[in-house]
Amino acid sequence: MISLAELQRRIDSGDLSTDAAIAQSLEAIGAHDKTIGAFVCHAKDARAASAGPLRGIAVGIKDIMDTSDFPTEMGSPIYRGFRPRGDAPVVAALRQAGATIIGKTTTTAFASLDPTATLNPRHHGHTPGGSSSGSAAAVAAGMIPLALGTQTGGSVIRPASFCGVAAIKPSFRLLPTVGIKCYSWTLDTVGLFAAGVSDLAHGLSAMTGRPELMLPAAISTLRIGVVTQDFAGAPEVAGGEALRIAIKAAEAAGASVRTLALPEIVAEAWRIQPTIQEFEAHQALAWEYHTHYDAMAPLVRARLDEGKGIAPAAYDAARGVAKKARRALAGVFEDIDVLLTLSAPGAAPKGLGSTGDARFNRLWTLMGVPCVNIPADVADGGLPVGVQVIARFGNDAGALAAARFVEDALKA
Amino acid sequence: MISLAELQRRIDSGDLSTDAAIAQSLEAIGAHDKTIGAFVCHAKDARAASAGPLRGIAVGIKDIMDTSDFPTEMGSPIYRGFRPRGDAPVVAALRQAGATIIGKTTTTAFASLDPTATLNPRHHGHTPGGSSSGSAAAVAAGMIPLALGTQTGGSVIRPASFCGVAAIKPSFRLLPTVGIKCYSWTLDTVGLFAAGVSDLAHGLSAMTGRPELMLPAAISTLRIGVVTQDFAGAPEVAGGEALRIAIKAAEAAGASVRTLALPEIVAEAWRIQPTIQEFEAHQALAWEYHTHYDAMAPLVRARLDEGKGIAPAAYDAARGVAKKARRALAGVFEDIDVLLTLSAPGAAPKGLGSTGDARFNRLWTLMGVPCVNIPADVADGGLPVGVQVIARFGNDAGALAAARFVEDALKA
Repeated sequence: MISLAELQRRIDSGDLSTDAAIAQSLEAIGAHDKTIGAFVCHAKDARAASAGPLRGIAVGIKDIMDTSDFPTEMGSPIYRGFRPRGDAPVVAALRQAGATIIGKTTTTAFASLDPTATLNPRHHGHTPGGSSSGSAAAVAAGMIPLALGTQTGGSVIRPASFCGVAAIKPSFRLLPTVGIKCYSWTLDTVGLFAAGVSDLAHGLSAMTGRPELMLPAAISTLRIGVVTQDFAGAPEVAGGEALRIAIKAAEAAGASVRTLALPEIVAEAWRIQPTIQEFEAHQALAWEYHTHYDAMAPLVRARLDEGKGIAPAAYDAARGVAKKARRALAGVFEDIDVLLTLSAPGAAPKGLGSTGDARFNRLWTLMGVPCVNIPADVADGGLPVGVQVIARFGNDAGALAAARFVEDALKA
Repeated sequence: MISLAELQRRIDSGDLSTDAAIAQSLEAIGAHDKTIGAFVCHAKDARAASAGPLRGIAVGIKDIMDTSDFPTEMGSPIYRGFRPRGDAPVVAALRQAGATIIGKTTTTAFASLDPTATLNPRHHGHTPGGSSSGSAAAVAAGMIPLALGTQTGGSVIRPASFCGVAAIKPSFRLLPTVGIKCYSWTLDTVGLFAAGVSDLAHGLSAMTGRPELMLPAAISTLRIGVVTQDFAGAPEVAGGEALRIAIKAAEAAGASVRTLALPEIVAEAWRIQPTIQEFEAHQALAWEYHTHYDAMAPLVRARLDEGKGIAPAAYDAARGVAKKARRALAGVFEDIDVLLTLSAPGAAPKGLGSTGDARFNRLWTLMGVPCVNIPADVADGGLPVGVQVIARFGNDAGALAAARFVEDALKA
């Protein structure tokens, strides 16, 4: 994989020209993307910007985000050839920071469940996960140092876990979802994929103009609360093993680790998350559903068929639960710095028929809290398995710092 | 003006065909819009749908909202001829309810401050207000029974007050802003314009599928708290007079009315509202600002120039104030049913150089609470002046019911 932070160091020191850095990504795309299929399209003659912290950094953009220079097709024939007029704010922020938008990455239709043809770079017979399939795969295959995705259920953390890359789903609305195809306005969250945690911090800090997101030199103490999300069912063997390995490594590195039970209202929030997601999806995709029903991909259409009857009162009640659960979860963070939990039930499922299960992710998207995926090596047939570090709402810097602590501990 | 509720009654009883109802709007547009200039474009051959509660109802859509069958030009040459692929969810909801989208109404550039050429139907020498200028004017001139606008500072309630129409800015996100050009994602709120409060209730209920928004037969008791928003400065004579008339009328109709002081944190929220609005606008309009600076209208561009240096920390602090103020305001509603306050400093200013001042509106947009404008007749040179009724977050039904009480009281 290409480390963003390492590229920046080489560019800053004059070891590498910005155009050479971009050319490196173009070559890697040329070499691997015919097999992996992470890109919908890319610029063959992309050039580097001359200034900005992300100059020389090639970035892939999930194809539900508006771009002024590439079509935006939402993973659906309904949007074939669609040209937005401008860039989504997150894309504009990348360009302002000097990044080169190198292309659009594959997405399941409307960031839902229908798999793309993208392969998992770590094992071609397995799904890369979804819905941000192309962004996770493009980084995992070493084609680009940074990619943007979105998460409504588990569409950033899950594919990152399956492909063995670092990813952050920041606090809700730290990055605007303006100019990005909506599935659920209460849940949709923009996230970043990169080789390691430090790379995520460099990317997110540059995009937001927030230097406090850069990693501290070291963390002296760290109080970790482990949660197993029993309300979401049991993990597979590999998922459970990854969590155990991460706990052991963090303890050995000096963290204080204890297992926590989440308040019942938080488990209730996990249960009602689909009510909020699907009630809003019915409005967000109303035009597509009512005027292009036959052209919709089967899994997203079936989801919309199922969610048709959700009453406003059920949605209002679910929002009430979410509000209470967010307050209760804030209380949990009074005694600990971060939570550590599963990123996915296990390694990437075999085949391309499913993008996997978001049951260990959807609670955290609803809570709006920052989540960072860290790959853990559990030797499960060569497939990676991730764990996620979660901080309180607004503490993205803390989530990143703690994730780097766990990442370092796992390497030791 | 055309009453939506009255049209529905005539259609339901068979007195009026749905196509005749649409034809009536087309005729009125033909007769008046050459003078008023409320529409950017409209369908000359619009037809009625055969079913749905809003069948036969012609609706105007502010031209920052995506429509599949009309261009969406954002009041700016940067978007000249831009064709979105689909309908914004609020537009799709109207069509699902049977409404006929008759055309796009004028908007200040990006729903900011630069006046359109639209005239105030009540006095052609005065501004109709902004930014939803065309929607307010089209309803006021009797061209259409319903129009959609958006409010970030005061862009629904202010033009409604200036043009003498009823309008509701519902609770934040009761109507999704998906597919609508963003200025500030924390503030942008979709609103409705109609002839009277009952018409608003019929329209909003049909769009949302929420029968509880329909007006009750009568209100037995109503506790009104009057706030003068002194932190926003003094109103003009006509504005103060409208509030006095409304208070007197409500008291005479049996309401219990008392003057309230708002908690200091709420005044502080009024002060920091521009920080949130302009920090987000810089991201929301980043592409336009950085790649089409010269083509931007002067007032919105100047606003963006001014807001350039707002630091993330100032924005974070402002969001913290807003959160505390929302809680404090919820406490205010423990002893009263609704607030009654000014809709604007006074009547519509003379000339088309300014769309007027949002200083009596911006707090309520930030608080996310439902606001309803009710025209009051203060005989100020024939120009209307409005007052607004405000309920706690989520109590849109209560805001509408109380607004109808005040509306009836003012007629008596």
